[in-house]
Amino acid sequence: MKSKQDLIALFCGLALCLGLVSCSSETEKISEEPTNSREIAGASAALPSWNDGDTKQAIIGFVEEVTNSESPNYIKPEDRIATFDNDGTLWSEQPVYFQFFFAIDRIKTMAADHPEWKDQQPYKAILEKDMPALMEQGKAGLLKVVMTTHAGMTTDEFEKIVSDWIATAKHPTKNRPYTDLIFQPMLELVQYLHAYDFKVFIVSGGGIEFMRPWAEEVYGIPRDRVVGSSIKTEYDYNDGQPIIKRLPEIDLIDDKEGKPIGIHRYIGRKPVFAAGNSDGDLQMLRWTAANSAKSFKLYVHHTDEAREWAYDRDSHIGTFDKGWDEAKEKGWTLVDMKEDWKVIYPHELDSVD
Amino acid sequence: MKSKQDLIALFCGLALCLGLVSCSSETEKISEEPTNSREIAGASAALPSWNDGDTKQAIIGFVEEVTNSESPNYIKPEDRIATFDNDGTLWSEQPVYFQFFFAIDRIKTMAADHPEWKDQQPYKAILEKDMPALMEQGKAGLLKVVMTTHAGMTTDEFEKIVSDWIATAKHPTKNRPYTDLIFQPMLELVQYLHAYDFKVFIVSGGGIEFMRPWAEEVYGIPRDRVVGSSIKTEYDYNDGQPIIKRLPEIDLIDDKEGKPIGIHRYIGRKPVFAAGNSDGDLQMLRWTAANSAKSFKLYVHHTDEAREWAYDRDSHIGTFDKGWDEAKEKGWTLVDMKEDWKVIYPHELDSVD
Repeated sequence: MKSKQDLIALFCGLALCLGLVSCSSETEKISEEPTNSREIAGASAALPSWNDGDTKQAIIGFVEEVTNSESPNYIKPEDRIATFDNDGTLWSEQPVYFQFFFAIDRIKTMAADHPEWKDQQPYKAILEKDMPALMEQGKAGLLKVVMTTHAGMTTDEFEKIVSDWIATAKHPTKNRPYTDLIFQPMLELVQYLHAYDFKVFIVSGGGIEFMRPWAEEVYGIPRDRVVGSSIKTEYDYNDGQPIIKRLPEIDLIDDKEGKPIGIHRYIGRKPVFAAGNSDGDLQMLRWTAANSAKSFKLYVHHTDEAREWAYDRDSHIGTFDKGWDEAKEKGWTLVDMKEDWKVIYPHELDSVD
Repeated sequence: MKSKQDLIALFCGLALCLGLVSCSSETEKISEEPTNSREIAGASAALPSWNDGDTKQAIIGFVEEVTNSESPNYIKPEDRIATFDNDGTLWSEQPVYFQFFFAIDRIKTMAADHPEWKDQQPYKAILEKDMPALMEQGKAGLLKVVMTTHAGMTTDEFEKIVSDWIATAKHPTKNRPYTDLIFQPMLELVQYLHAYDFKVFIVSGGGIEFMRPWAEEVYGIPRDRVVGSSIKTEYDYNDGQPIIKRLPEIDLIDDKEGKPIGIHRYIGRKPVFAAGNSDGDLQMLRWTAANSAKSFKLYVHHTDEAREWAYDRDSHIGTFDKGWDEAKEKGWTLVDMKEDWKVIYPHELDSVD
């Protein structure tokens, strides 16, 4: 389903999940120190969980400029398209994309009806927490896990499966519901953009139907503004009770080159604001930069080992170096989570005055 | 690209366009006479171009009921999804889908750079207005015309081609821009639904990128709420000037079974309101009827030979009988254009007091 890098991330994530190994993320601290300019007196009422500083000022400066009808860079409301990556940008993605935990949990649940899996790979490896055996299954094994857990049911059934899981599952180390692990500052950024009549879309490599059941309530982003990877479907009249069946066949991989494709397919306009965190978002940010209107490109850099995770450039979760190098070269905005964010998660708000 | 019926419609349309034949639509008048109940005293301020009567009252009754929070059939704003077919529902579709006129005009324009077309089918037939030769090309010939005119350029280039065409082209018999041939009462219905916080989407068998350049201005429906047939695309970094190329390969045929698929892909919710006019819309209306919430299904019946066109059941433009039979059986709402609509097109408003 994804690249080799993602495959490694999955297995590393699987291993962590199964409690067998500990994948260390080789964190390379960014050299830039926070400057005093970040401590600007008089915090703006907007973006309250963002520390005052260059990053916050860059966002506010852009939004105020392009929504000011007197400005030469004014952007009409219908053209105010903002696209946000999900994993690592709107919520955490460690030790592995949360959707993979869903897949693993699903295999465990489904195993009750599949006694044959105790002798069949890749299921056997997952059930026995046998990491080396799982690694041996390669990309074909991964695809089997994905399709077994994501296809073969109706869209209504899958919606219920995801809704039930997200309501009950907990992150293995944070021990909280996954929807607690969204980024409070990014939530405020989405709300801030909404207040200025931007249309905010999620554009994620994750599954569109994995996100839609909860994204609206959690992020305030309507489900028709969720773009993601998809599998093919089939309509069936079903004797007067129409259904749509989920087929085990890839439709769109909404990652890397797939992000501009997905944006064009679902939105039909180039964004003027895009936020990502990895090389998988680079094409989306380039597509945004190609807009003839003024645009804003934002990269979230995971620098906070204490409150979230810290990882950099070449981590088991993916690569980040191309995006950052281009961001620095072209003057795009890098968010330093440790320095720019007062809190990471919404539940931390309780402990902030 | 479409069914055999559509192929016949194309060639019949091509013939008309080329001025070679006159395709008669075998109109079967519906037997129902307008009732006195249509002349209810005191026209509502809503839907001013709709005559007072059962149809208008059914629409208003539904909308007022499901948006009333005291009602047991209350529908929350986020679930108020309305889907409208385009050809024959939001604008006319005679003598053939307007997008086919676009394709023919495009072939004529492109022929200047393709001297070889004077000896190559299906181009030769179009350029020579040779209908029998064109008919001989069959579905493969049609697909060649579609792909030659719709693929092989960037998405930005195609947008400009469509925008230039829609701004200048005129309907062959009405002698007006195609965008003058939208239905004023349906425009009011879209606005009425917007006023009640419905999200109105176009869900059309026509090309998504053929509609998007003008639908927002003409219908007030944002381009991210336009769903239609699509071809595959490819992202190209293009040495720092990213482009998306249109490939000569079908992605989604958003017609018949493709409509629920398209609705699920783009919207992610079952509609509660759907409007169509042909059997190509039946699956969309069934999908809407399958909503557990109360829903409204509307079929536009083309009964006005004087002001628009009159055609019925089995016309060269497609089939209509399955949809109507099911509509009558299940109590869906049939719009009789001649009886229900004070005016057909916006320009007629000038002559109405």
